[in-house]
Amino acid sequence: MKVLVAIDSFKGSFSSAEAATVAIRVFNHYGVQSTGVTLADGGEGTSAAFLANQEDGHWETVMVHDPCGKVIDAKYAYVPTKHIAVIDAAMASGIQSVKTDLGFVDPVTTSSAGTGELIMAAIKHGATKVIVGLGGTGTTDAGIGLMGVLGAKFYDSYHQLLPAVIGSLALIDHVDLSNIATENVQLIACTDVDSYLTGASGAVQMFGPQKGLTELDLKHFELWFQHFSQLVDPTYQGRLAGDGAAGGIGFALRLLGATRMPGFQLMSHVAQLDEKIAAADIVITGEGQLDQQSLHGKLPVQVAQSAQRFHKPCLCVAGNIKLTVPELQAAGFTTAFSLVQQVTDLESAIREGKQNLALLMERLVPLLQIIGPDRL
Amino acid sequence: MKVLVAIDSFKGSFSSAEAATVAIRVFNHYGVQSTGVTLADGGEGTSAAFLANQEDGHWETVMVHDPCGKVIDAKYAYVPTKHIAVIDAAMASGIQSVKTDLGFVDPVTTSSAGTGELIMAAIKHGATKVIVGLGGTGTTDAGIGLMGVLGAKFYDSYHQLLPAVIGSLALIDHVDLSNIATENVQLIACTDVDSYLTGASGAVQMFGPQKGLTELDLKHFELWFQHFSQLVDPTYQGRLAGDGAAGGIGFALRLLGATRMPGFQLMSHVAQLDEKIAAADIVITGEGQLDQQSLHGKLPVQVAQSAQRFHKPCLCVAGNIKLTVPELQAAGFTTAFSLVQQVTDLESAIREGKQNLALLMERLVPLLQIIGPDRL
Repeated sequence: MKVLVAIDSFKGSFSSAEAATVAIRVFNHYGVQSTGVTLADGGEGTSAAFLANQEDGHWETVMVHDPCGKVIDAKYAYVPTKHIAVIDAAMASGIQSVKTDLGFVDPVTTSSAGTGELIMAAIKHGATKVIVGLGGTGTTDAGIGLMGVLGAKFYDSYHQLLPAVIGSLALIDHVDLSNIATENVQLIACTDVDSYLTGASGAVQMFGPQKGLTELDLKHFELWFQHFSQLVDPTYQGRLAGDGAAGGIGFALRLLGATRMPGFQLMSHVAQLDEKIAAADIVITGEGQLDQQSLHGKLPVQVAQSAQRFHKPCLCVAGNIKLTVPELQAAGFTTAFSLVQQVTDLESAIREGKQNLALLMERLVPLLQIIGPDRL
Repeated sequence: MKVLVAIDSFKGSFSSAEAATVAIRVFNHYGVQSTGVTLADGGEGTSAAFLANQEDGHWETVMVHDPCGKVIDAKYAYVPTKHIAVIDAAMASGIQSVKTDLGFVDPVTTSSAGTGELIMAAIKHGATKVIVGLGGTGTTDAGIGLMGVLGAKFYDSYHQLLPAVIGSLALIDHVDLSNIATENVQLIACTDVDSYLTGASGAVQMFGPQKGLTELDLKHFELWFQHFSQLVDPTYQGRLAGDGAAGGIGFALRLLGATRMPGFQLMSHVAQLDEKIAAADIVITGEGQLDQQSLHGKLPVQVAQSAQRFHKPCLCVAGNIKLTVPELQAAGFTTAFSLVQQVTDLESAIREGKQNLALLMERLVPLLQIIGPDRL
């Protein structure tokens, strides 16, 4: 019986790598063969998950500007042998920087420049392939800050150079991309967010409210984003899937030549997930909450579907399971069990997540031993 | 794959019979063959569990005196074809009758007469075999009330007839058992309580406090019980296992000719548990809380040990599992899962017990289907 552990991070409780470590420790203890993979879905943790699957990667730390212009240390993953850099947009432009005790900072003052600075640092360091994980950002600037750092020039109708800030969006008449730093670099925008730059499910209206945009902001930003995208992207006008990711950084990266890759596709490739599933007898995946939203391509469902392609059963573990067994099976899971195995409150459940994961694995071992490898 | 469901009652949540019904409904829905048995451990629910395993049994209702002398309706199970009556001592002499908003009623005023009245009614109804489940009682009268109803006569040293009440215990000089109603009846005291009538683990000192005996009561009652047992039972003096059950009703029944049978032994015989385990591929048992105390012969552990004799795996389900997997396996369980499968408080967990049981069974079905019958 060989178990493959491919569990997503449980927000606030443990990372994907920690989940694998905990589960494998239990399986080893009971003499059950197991392997772990660290996964991420293109959001926060993409660079860490990437690094976990590389033998010679390491972190590079850079001083950048956070969304509010404050200088902070941010890091990116770098694999020198392959000249690949992997950057989480959340590292330099994360939501944590725009939340204060008094509420959100004024969204119009925020900028994605820091993520641009990380990309620039990676290119200067020698990266020829830069992967940017989009997710967990606190900015909604259509990526103009990032574009400015990477060499894009924005002009008004009097051909006056405009600063690369949100306030310029409505004034832009044309953009000069002739001298951008990403020219000779393979740039990849890694996201599972399918939304456009504008519209009801776009960067402003869908994701703005959770970043502190007021109702009035939503109207203004939407108009500015429309104007901007019509001018700089007349063909698609920001209407390609993924443009709306990370407050519009998805759109900006595309203008800078990026191709888009779904986060799971990247990570499963990097982690050689298919090969590992093929070599396993059973797959255990999981995430904090398993609900209707999970069915729209969230990590455990994608793992389950990969498992299904190889005809391997796939157990799901979750803190909270809001799907029935038929729903679980339709999504590709064999069945699911909760990490919560006693009366507890949410705070304790999150705090004791790792112990609970170990306990559940321990309780599943005897069933896995009965099942045996030849049954699957 | 044939599943045998043999789950104990979850106090305040569902009975053993309900657990079987709920689980079997789920298994049927998924096309998994299953059978249920209703079990009890000799305490409360013994008569109901007995009835559930009989084809032609029914309830008989009788007016009796509760521990405080109040007239109440109580019932016993009767199987006319076999002339067997099964009585829960808790029905007529239950703890619920001695608890008031102001605390416990004075223990010295309570009496087990009601249980004697139920036995008498059953004998008059034609019962030739009377099984009394001891457990859940509120009386601590060494069964003198019950003995009085069934024809025992208590005399003081002046040969004056004494009333069959606690206050007489210290005055008794001799007892006349020549005219008891249980003479020609097979009387069985059904209990899993091993304690003696007196002593540190006896009816008074061990179980008295939970029935409202004060520290002073404990001293008095212990002396009275010692005196009584030395006089009426000079050979054993109340020192046979089970004498201390139900506030001493165990002792009284023995004086009246009863043999003792452990509750699980009776119920598993009545429910043909061994035959059903032999015919099953896997056994599912359970109880509200699974802890160190459970290991001392509580129902699920006994089910697990029966399952082990037939080399069948035995899953345990519980609200709260306080044992490690090695401890579970040492007790005969394959593994255990909690009914609690999400963040919840105790009250909700108890209230939603049946739904949670159904949900857990549903989630186990796919694993049982993978395991298949030939694996076990």
